[in-house]
Amino acid sequence: MKIGVLFVALTMVSAHAVAQSGNAPPAFLDAQASDPVTMGWMVGSPPPPNRVIRFADGSYFRFPQTRWTFSNYRQLVPTRPVERGAMPAIPLKSALRPELEAVRFKKLDSDETFSFGDMYAKTYADGIVVMHRGQVVYEKYTGALKPNGHHAVASLTKSFVGILGASMVADGTLDEKAPVSKYLPELKDGGFGDATIRQLLDMTTGLQYSENYADPNAQVWSHVRAGGVLPKPANYTGPQTFYEFLLTVQKEGEHGKAFAYKTVNSDVMAWVIARVTGKSMSDMFSERIWSKLGVEHDAYFTVDSIGTEFAGGGLNTNLRDMARFGEMMRNKGRVGSQQVVPQSVVADIVKGASPEQFAQAGYPWLKGWSYRNMWWISHNSHGAYMARGIHGQSLYIDPKAEMVIARFGSHPIASGNANDPFTLPAFAAMADALMKRP
Amino acid sequence: MKIGVLFVALTMVSAHAVAQSGNAPPAFLDAQASDPVTMGWMVGSPPPPNRVIRFADGSYFRFPQTRWTFSNYRQLVPTRPVERGAMPAIPLKSALRPELEAVRFKKLDSDETFSFGDMYAKTYADGIVVMHRGQVVYEKYTGALKPNGHHAVASLTKSFVGILGASMVADGTLDEKAPVSKYLPELKDGGFGDATIRQLLDMTTGLQYSENYADPNAQVWSHVRAGGVLPKPANYTGPQTFYEFLLTVQKEGEHGKAFAYKTVNSDVMAWVIARVTGKSMSDMFSERIWSKLGVEHDAYFTVDSIGTEFAGGGLNTNLRDMARFGEMMRNKGRVGSQQVVPQSVVADIVKGASPEQFAQAGYPWLKGWSYRNMWWISHNSHGAYMARGIHGQSLYIDPKAEMVIARFGSHPIASGNANDPFTLPAFAAMADALMKRP
Repeated sequence: MKIGVLFVALTMVSAHAVAQSGNAPPAFLDAQASDPVTMGWMVGSPPPPNRVIRFADGSYFRFPQTRWTFSNYRQLVPTRPVERGAMPAIPLKSALRPELEAVRFKKLDSDETFSFGDMYAKTYADGIVVMHRGQVVYEKYTGALKPNGHHAVASLTKSFVGILGASMVADGTLDEKAPVSKYLPELKDGGFGDATIRQLLDMTTGLQYSENYADPNAQVWSHVRAGGVLPKPANYTGPQTFYEFLLTVQKEGEHGKAFAYKTVNSDVMAWVIARVTGKSMSDMFSERIWSKLGVEHDAYFTVDSIGTEFAGGGLNTNLRDMARFGEMMRNKGRVGSQQVVPQSVVADIVKGASPEQFAQAGYPWLKGWSYRNMWWISHNSHGAYMARGIHGQSLYIDPKAEMVIARFGSHPIASGNANDPFTLPAFAAMADALMKRP
Repeated sequence: MKIGVLFVALTMVSAHAVAQSGNAPPAFLDAQASDPVTMGWMVGSPPPPNRVIRFADGSYFRFPQTRWTFSNYRQLVPTRPVERGAMPAIPLKSALRPELEAVRFKKLDSDETFSFGDMYAKTYADGIVVMHRGQVVYEKYTGALKPNGHHAVASLTKSFVGILGASMVADGTLDEKAPVSKYLPELKDGGFGDATIRQLLDMTTGLQYSENYADPNAQVWSHVRAGGVLPKPANYTGPQTFYEFLLTVQKEGEHGKAFAYKTVNSDVMAWVIARVTGKSMSDMFSERIWSKLGVEHDAYFTVDSIGTEFAGGGLNTNLRDMARFGEMMRNKGRVGSQQVVPQSVVADIVKGASPEQFAQAGYPWLKGWSYRNMWWISHNSHGAYMARGIHGQSLYIDPKAEMVIARFGSHPIASGNANDPFTLPAFAAMADALMKRP
């Protein structure tokens, strides 16, 4: 098991190295060669030994196995449903325009141009839904992701948590200026004790917590290992749950000074919500959001050994359902005549936060962006904003172009830096193409 | 972890002892005192230490924690969905008759009489749906089971496997007279090698496999431990998957001589189906049955470390959906005008097998019954037949009374012997009461 964990860490190191090397070709099988159906992962009774994917040996978290894993998480770890409830599914109208695959864009870090279809393959997309004015205009699935299936949405999860938190601030249940310790006294002496709810929501906390996937000693690894997202080594004596880990996080620097993307903020935000409401994240998601979108499928969360949801990244949804969620956001929080998310919360996200505070985080492809209520705001001329997750998970909302793009992927490199040079100009070019239509 | 496993085994020993002692009052909290909501299992963020239920320490499998576990399996172990598909749910019509709770019956092992409502409490039921002529006439949920929730159906799973196997015999895909080794050559030298498909379906194999829960060395424990249904001890070196375990099962006596209830028969039947179709049990269930019933919810299977479903007992369903399945059986395999299960397969189940072969198994409350295609046939005057699972899971179909009862429970004692003296006469009395209605 130690070997498995080490391998995961090494994969991350190598992925990071490639990400840093700029234009160097990735040292990975390309999308076609790594197609999980072609490779035959987990096919057979039993599958051949070299086509088995297991949790305990860490194989599930290695590329190219991840191309299968991200569409099959519940087969590997315990989960909890986010129920769609009794609301009938709202059919997604389709007006498919296959020619949109040819929409061209210039890659951010070169003078080369590519098509939208190139972007799909180059970034190891598993599925994509483009909606324009509420209709599906482009839709594609490959590999292990089926139209009726589920996919890990990774840190898109945070954007749901952010909406819940901001909604509870909006309705007065939470005080955004109050310290976390007002709601979670057990965190008083830890790193989060004097951070405010607002600082959690905007990730401007100062915490001793590295999200550097290249560093096997980064706290992000301890965090997910505590929560059972990674297997625990044989003689593991560390925290056994997400909550136990969060108690160990220490302060570093000052809160409120700069944006610093740290997954723990989302888990603490979710903990506050659970404590105040007495309800699990799954039930809160279902009650406040998922049951009101007209989705087709329950979603689900991966959970730790005591049933606590991984609020920083454990949500798994259907792709069309994610597009429905995006449409609700584009429609200022409404589904039909029902206000699902307060309009003020959506407006607050669209408005964004401080690009100056954001700039300090140094994202090469996100110049001028900001981060608000756990969403990424481009501040471009279309007012586009995103929910973003590792390995290429994206929900891109372009209000001016009346466009929503939901995209799941399994890029070998975790960091968004590897996808952005392709995806950001591709999304913008698609918006332009859609706006040109009379 | 060793202590956890030992504790589970001891609980089983004591449960068995009570079961054998006849009228002695069970040494367990009663249904009301053990109500999992009242006890507060898994409530809080985090739950209090003495209200946490974990897989790894075996606490999930101890009574009274099981009263929570059976409605929340997916929070504890990996699972795989049985998709309901695109068919709209067929609403269940209700014509509730609360007075049916007062229907009285004489308990089998005493002269005492009880009401149907007494039966519910005395047998630790979690939920029950009684249908008459296709309408819900009585419905109740308690504890951790919610109307939209899921519950472990335990060995009711086998009856689904039996239908799939028998259907494939009926359509010629499988030869019921062929040895298992025709389909699974790797079992040629094992206990199943020369057993026929028919012997699997009727469990008349002769196998060195004890289903005696009271014996910690019984093979049933090795079986479920291999499949990850029980945690593996720290230094475990045995089989790592269901398939690996099935390869180790040895022959004992002769095949075809007597009924002997052994869970492995279902797992081998499912293995044959997976090998012949190239499809997982989950997908086969979905395609052939679950997507054609008009159910409301996906079902799910617990799976082992390589994604193989526990075909002997790993299915979890919604209760009303189980009632829909029962209605399909009562209607000779039809849902509306669609034939879901071949009529000949249902007829073969209703007809049953040899009560003489069954009698050798010595079930105290099932005199004159038989076992066919993994269903239990009463051969009573109503032609009633059942799917049965440990801890009180039951699907009871009474063709003459036009009645279906779906019932989930969490009785502290695994064996059906503990439930039958209450449930069998209660079900029969309900049938009589419903037939008396003009």
